[in-house]
Parts: sequence; C-alpha cells; structure tokens
Amino acid sequence: MNVLLTGAYGRCGTAIIDHLHDDSGYEFTYLDREEPDENGEYGEYETIVADVADSHAVRDAAADQDAMIHLAGYPFTDGTWDDVHQPNIIGTLNALEAAREAELETVVFASSNHVMGMYESENAPELYFGTESSFRLSHEDPVRPDSYYGVSKSFGEDLCRYYVENYEYPKRAHAIRICSLRMPEYDHPYGDAEHDVDDGEYERDSDEYAQQVARMKAMWQSRRDFAHMIDRCLRTDDERFEIFSGVSDNDRRWYSIEHARDTIGYEPRDNGEEWDSPPE
Amino acid sequence: MNVLLTGAYGRCGTAIIDHLHDDSGYEFTYLDREEPDENGEYGEYETIVADVADSHAVRDAAADQDAMIHLAGYPFTDGTWDDVHQPNIIGTLNALEAAREAELETVVFASSNHVMGMYESENAPELYFGTESSFRLSHEDPVRPDSYYGVSKSFGEDLCRYYVENYEYPKRAHAIRICSLRMPEYDHPYGDAEHDVDDGEYERDSDEYAQQVARMKAMWQSRRDFAHMIDRCLRTDDERFEIFSGVSDNDRRWYSIEHARDTIGYEPRDNGEEWDSPPE
Repeated sequence: MNVLLTGAYGRCGTAIIDHLHDDSGYEFTYLDREEPDENGEYGEYETIVADVADSHAVRDAAADQDAMIHLAGYPFTDGTWDDVHQPNIIGTLNALEAAREAELETVVFASSNHVMGMYESENAPELYFGTESSFRLSHEDPVRPDSYYGVSKSFGEDLCRYYVENYEYPKRAHAIRICSLRMPEYDHPYGDAEHDVDDGEYERDSDEYAQQVARMKAMWQSRRDFAHMIDRCLRTDDERFEIFSGVSDNDRRWYSIEHARDTIGYEPRDNGEEWDSPPE
Repeated sequence: MNVLLTGAYGRCGTAIIDHLHDDSGYEFTYLDREEPDENGEYGEYETIVADVADSHAVRDAAADQDAMIHLAGYPFTDGTWDDVHQPNIIGTLNALEAAREAELETVVFASSNHVMGMYESENAPELYFGTESSFRLSHEDPVRPDSYYGVSKSFGEDLCRYYVENYEYPKRAHAIRICSLRMPEYDHPYGDAEHDVDDGEYERDSDEYAQQVARMKAMWQSRRDFAHMIDRCLRTDDERFEIFSGVSDNDRRWYSIEHARDTIGYEPRDNGEEWDSPPE
C-alpha cells in the first residue's frame, strides 16, 4: 500500500514512522514543509518539501498513492484565524481534493480533541481526577470547539464527510474511506513525559502542575497505540466516514474508545496511569 | 432594539422587512451588496452597500447595533469552493467578529437545511410523500452536508458556537446569544408557489414535478412563520447557542420544530399542505 504522510516529521508523524516505516505492508512517501534534519534520525529519508496550502504540490504528491495520512496543519489552540486559515482550512481542502482526484482508497485526517474542548473547559479540573467519571464523550456528541484551531478541525471533519458521501469514485468499487482521528494535544502526546509537563511552565509542587499531569493521564495516547490506530484505519475496509478519539485505554479518559474498538478493531495496550513511565 | 440585517433584499431578507419593518420594537439597518431597485417596494430604504467579505464595512455597520441578522452569503448548492469561500466562510467570520467587538446582544445566523442534506438524499423521494414519517431530524443529529455550500454553513454553525462559548463580553450581563436557523431552500421558500416549481425545469405532469411539489410541502416555511421565528430569536433572552430548523408546522416535515417551540416559543401558523394556496 502506497501511503502519503503529510506533516511527516512532527511529533505525531514520527510516531507513525517509528512504528510503521519498516512494516512491509506500507511504502511511505513523506511530505513536510522542511527537509528533515540531515544529522537526525530521519535525515536520509526522501522528502517532498511542500506546503499543503499549495494545491498543485499536494495533488502531485497524492497521484500514485493508495492512501493518505493528513497530519500537516497549524497545531496550537492559541492560533488566530490567520494562523489556521491557510494550513488547516485550505490545506485540508487541498488534501481532500487531491485524494478525490487520485481516488485514494483511504484518508486518515488528523482532527483534534479541541473540536470538543468546551466540554473539558466546563468540567476541568475535577474531570482530570476521576477514574470512574460518568462523563464520556463519543463521536455522536455535538462539537463544541474551544479555539479557531478547534473550529478549523471541525470544519475538516465536515469536509471529510462530504467527500465520502457526495462524490462518486469511478475507479473504485466503493467510495473513499475517511477516518478522522481526534488527536491528543500536540504539545503533550505520546508519553514524552519529561518534556511535556516539566517545561518550566508550572512549578513542580503547584496545583496547576498536578492538574496537567492528571490531564495527561486522561488524554494520553502512547506512540505505539497511536501508530496501531493509524494501522487499523488503513487496513480496515469500510466505505464510511468515521470519527475516533486518539486515546489509550486510560482509566481517567472521558473520550470513548468503544467506537474505534468496534469499527476498526482498535486494541490499545497502554493506560495513562503508566504515563509517568511509558513503555519503550 | 437596533438590528442590522445583512443580505436585506434577498428573498429571506424581504420576508423580514415585510413583516417586521413596521414593528415599533425594531429599528433596522439594511446592508446589501447593491442598492435596492429605486422603483421597487424597498426603493426608498436607506441601505449600507457593502460586501460581507469586507471586514471593515461589516464592523462599521455593526458598531451601534443591539442585534444582527446575518443572511448575506452565496445561497446555492451548486457552488464551488471558490463561490462559497469569501461570502460564506470569510463573510460569516467577519459578521461574528463584528458582533463580538460590538458586543451585540443577539445574532441570528442563516444556516441551511443543506448541512443535513445527505439524510434527505438517502431517503428521497419516498420521504416527500409520507405524512407520518418515523424519520425526524433535530438539532442534535450530526451534520451531513450535501455541498460546499452545506459545508460552509456547518462551518458557520461551529464558528457561532465558538463565539458564544469562548469569549467574554464585559459590557453585557451574559454572553452573546446566537441562533442558527437552518433555512429552507433559497430557491423555493415562503410560498411563492408559481415561481418556485413551475419555472420550466420540470414538466407539469412528470414524476419530478410531483416530487418537487411534495418536497416543498415538507420543507416549506411561510414568510410569516419565518419572520415570526426571527422575531422570537431576537426577543428571547437566553445566552446559549441554539439551532432551529426553518419549517412551518408541515404534516410532511422531517425537520423537528419541537426545539424551537420549547426554547423560543416558535408557534408556526402554517402547514405545507396549504402551500399551493399560501396565506396573504
């Protein structure tokens, strides 16, 4: 399976590379705005250097692929409209239009938990400390974005659904399949504990620090669980639009993983309670 | 109450003018891309001539208002991305940003039934002929847009919710209130029966003609019910984001009106079965 990965060398992209690059089932093409650091771990990887706001570049990159994992975009909740407009609104339009033209089999779209961020704002910090919360959000709950970034991602989800449900794909036996993954925070994902919380923003013994640690234990998705979820999205044959939340099997989670379990066979191995000492 | 009406001289805007202009409770300011026909019914109305894609013009127009009814936009489902991008995506951003800066009390946003259009596509034409359908869509069902136009409106709804839930409004006792009305088809609304269906697109005795008539009886909102719904949105004091479907009390409707009834006291007087001979 030929797979185009946009935003390849970000923290989410590298989790995919680390766990799936050597999988014989995939032949990856990496696209990023910059060449990888030539002395770094990915320095020798061939890279398409392009901005996803450039529709022609994205179309060319998608032409001979079977699938696309679209991670590229502006990733922070403090973004203004101008920050998210080109990378996230236009970039996602370009990615989907390229996928439609190339009649890809599957697209995985990096959405965000911030499309639901207001549910968290309303219930924090108590939410972070419950392990048996009655509060559980699924793909069926209405979006409540907490930022322009969150709005740009809910836009992306609606556009994905449109590209699944409205177009015909003459070369394919069925419509394009698109999974929207509501990723954890870009700043905090995948078990890089020392970097994530202990970055000087909070005092070690402050309430805020304790809250951020507790939050991470609820929101965490380990790098291997994330790569496994991507793998399941790519391998499952289903022509619908689906939304999944990117979380491990965390005791404290408030995002449901049941839909991913039932639909794509997501079987997370990790639990946010182990976040302080993640595997691998 | 000072109210800015954008897209004033379109078919929806004129329903508001016809029913509410002389209401002593409102002092309207009309904004449109063009001056009204000077020989027409609205020829003498003072008009701010501006495009909603011009953020400065919208901000100036909103400055001294208490409320805004934002109807301006590209209204057709055959629109390309380029058709909807400036008027609907950027135009709605500008309208909401102007409302936030002016700290308006209320905004009514013209969304569309096309944010839910795929439910209809899947069930048509059978859907049009049932009067006791078990199929009923509410504001809580996930959006399934049928067009770039539909996606632009679901984007607008998400952005509205963001402006209600995320900002503080220091001058107000509570947050801005925004009602999103999922309007009927722009081509067919409000009982202009001869024009709407009998425009030469379908033969009088064809199945397609019969389907369009039946569809209208399900989708119809009379001009007076529409204006009444706008009036109720403006007069109800509630600080939340709400979504209502613009339909009369049609026997054949599949869009729920219960939420509007319960929340803003919407009491439609008309029924699509009378669409062939509408009141007034």
